[in-house]
Amino acid sequence: MGRAEILRLPGERELAAAAERLRGQVRRTPVLELDGAELGVPARVLVKLELLQHTGSFKARGALNTLLLRPPAGDGVVAASGGNHGAAVAWAAARVAVPARVFVPATSPPVKAARVASYGAEVVVVDGYYPEAFAAAERWAAGRSVVRVHAYDAPEVVAGQATLGLEIAEQVPEVSTVLVSCGGGGLYAGTGLALAGRAAVVPVEPERCPSLSAAVAAGGPVPVEVGGVAADSMGAGLVGRHGYAVAAPSRTTPLLVPDEAIVAARRFLWERCRVLAEPGGATAFAALLSGAFTPVAGETVVVVVSGGNTTDVPT
Amino acid sequence: MGRAEILRLPGERELAAAAERLRGQVRRTPVLELDGAELGVPARVLVKLELLQHTGSFKARGALNTLLLRPPAGDGVVAASGGNHGAAVAWAAARVAVPARVFVPATSPPVKAARVASYGAEVVVVDGYYPEAFAAAERWAAGRSVVRVHAYDAPEVVAGQATLGLEIAEQVPEVSTVLVSCGGGGLYAGTGLALAGRAAVVPVEPERCPSLSAAVAAGGPVPVEVGGVAADSMGAGLVGRHGYAVAAPSRTTPLLVPDEAIVAARRFLWERCRVLAEPGGATAFAALLSGAFTPVAGETVVVVVSGGNTTDVPT
Repeated sequence: MGRAEILRLPGERELAAAAERLRGQVRRTPVLELDGAELGVPARVLVKLELLQHTGSFKARGALNTLLLRPPAGDGVVAASGGNHGAAVAWAAARVAVPARVFVPATSPPVKAARVASYGAEVVVVDGYYPEAFAAAERWAAGRSVVRVHAYDAPEVVAGQATLGLEIAEQVPEVSTVLVSCGGGGLYAGTGLALAGRAAVVPVEPERCPSLSAAVAAGGPVPVEVGGVAADSMGAGLVGRHGYAVAAPSRTTPLLVPDEAIVAARRFLWERCRVLAEPGGATAFAALLSGAFTPVAGETVVVVVSGGNTTDVPT
Repeated sequence: MGRAEILRLPGERELAAAAERLRGQVRRTPVLELDGAELGVPARVLVKLELLQHTGSFKARGALNTLLLRPPAGDGVVAASGGNHGAAVAWAAARVAVPARVFVPATSPPVKAARVASYGAEVVVVDGYYPEAFAAAERWAAGRSVVRVHAYDAPEVVAGQATLGLEIAEQVPEVSTVLVSCGGGGLYAGTGLALAGRAAVVPVEPERCPSLSAAVAAGGPVPVEVGGVAADSMGAGLVGRHGYAVAAPSRTTPLLVPDEAIVAARRFLWERCRVLAEPGGATAFAALLSGAFTPVAGETVVVVVSGGNTTDVPT
């Protein structure tokens, strides 16, 4: 009855159940081993190619886990997003054969709205930015029987993203460190829980989207201003309670990378690996390439490339 | 002493030696399992992501195997190419620390010449098309101590490309069919030899680059006119003796795919998998997606995506 809300993080059993539920439904994305010397680091480096996931980002995992756990009836699923979350919800709804309505800010790139529509969702373009789209989605949902999927701060979403961490444990059992980008913290929370006690999971934030850093400093989630090259996918503005709850006990401080490091990481991934990541998807790799993260000699590092929803080829 | 030249194809031992030689030197490219239903085929489908190889194509394997087998002295390595072969030779030369000189036709895209240069090769731009660049390379090589690397028709090149087939056998032991693009036939010959007796290796050609089809019809390699969307990497114009020799005993007839099918395959790989293949790299996948290849129900098909040297994102 106190003011502090008790947050129960998903446990081992819920993570295993999510993995079972999503088996054959989401892609088991492959890992690519790179040459540590080429990267200038004395470690074994493997890249988890999650951009090859359905809808081009890890968000498909949490969205589908939610809809399989809570099958929508009536008016189906609703989301507000002009980006990766919207595409994931649209795709997951099609998978479970329920209607989806996605409210997209008019300021989102038309190519992203088109992609949401390509999965069969009804796209409603709303004048303005994300808050206007969110408000329109809420107005539409009021009084209707719909399921809302949170973009990062719900236990079933976190458990879905955790399946990525469980895959890493199977694919690279000797992993000692996982670098993962952190926007709203859903992916970080999921992989952190999945690999607890097995590997260090290090969250990486763009300097200009420091929502977890701010939360760690403040002792809880606080709003931050966001901007920079990765804001479209990393600019949650407020880290989720789940992400914060995973970081807090170990006093984990995220690594921060400047925009230039993200741009350089994207370029390396494209030029040297033909992996076309979006800026948010290249943020964890930026920590390795820029030296923000220094591996222990001989350790095995897995870097998650979390999304590829871009059409911009570095030249 | 007869007029027929006896061609000795690389044997099992040479393939195994190439794999040993290239271990840790080339990337073991991962495979991505797709959902057969999504593709409209009743088979298990895995994509071998060879576009993630060093230099963005399988050519790195044959080029490095050649230079490790025949270490260049004196004036290093020479090649004529404005494309994947040139980049692979430049990269392989850097790996073994010898100078490389690559003669690039002025008609090649500047971005490709820049990539060759990025691996440290000396790029000589030659007015005209490939034949002019080839002639300039020959003039330069005359009287010098150089190693030439053939783009597809030499045993050490074929043995290098074969390592891709050996990887498939390890990664997907239950494979029954491998679809592979065929331009000059080096990759087809290598994978065919590597998987002989284990899986059917099916060559796929663009309709407008039918060099192996023409050879099978004529009873030996004959020049063909080439064109179309994949000509930059598939337009050998004359299939190699190795590729023909692998196809001939089994009377293998290549599958032919029209340009539209290649364009559609590229689009699917990008839109649904965030794999940005070049047209030649998407040619084998086009056979599956267009129905030119019909899998047996329940079989396991591996499709090689052989290259990603493009900057053109389908929108």
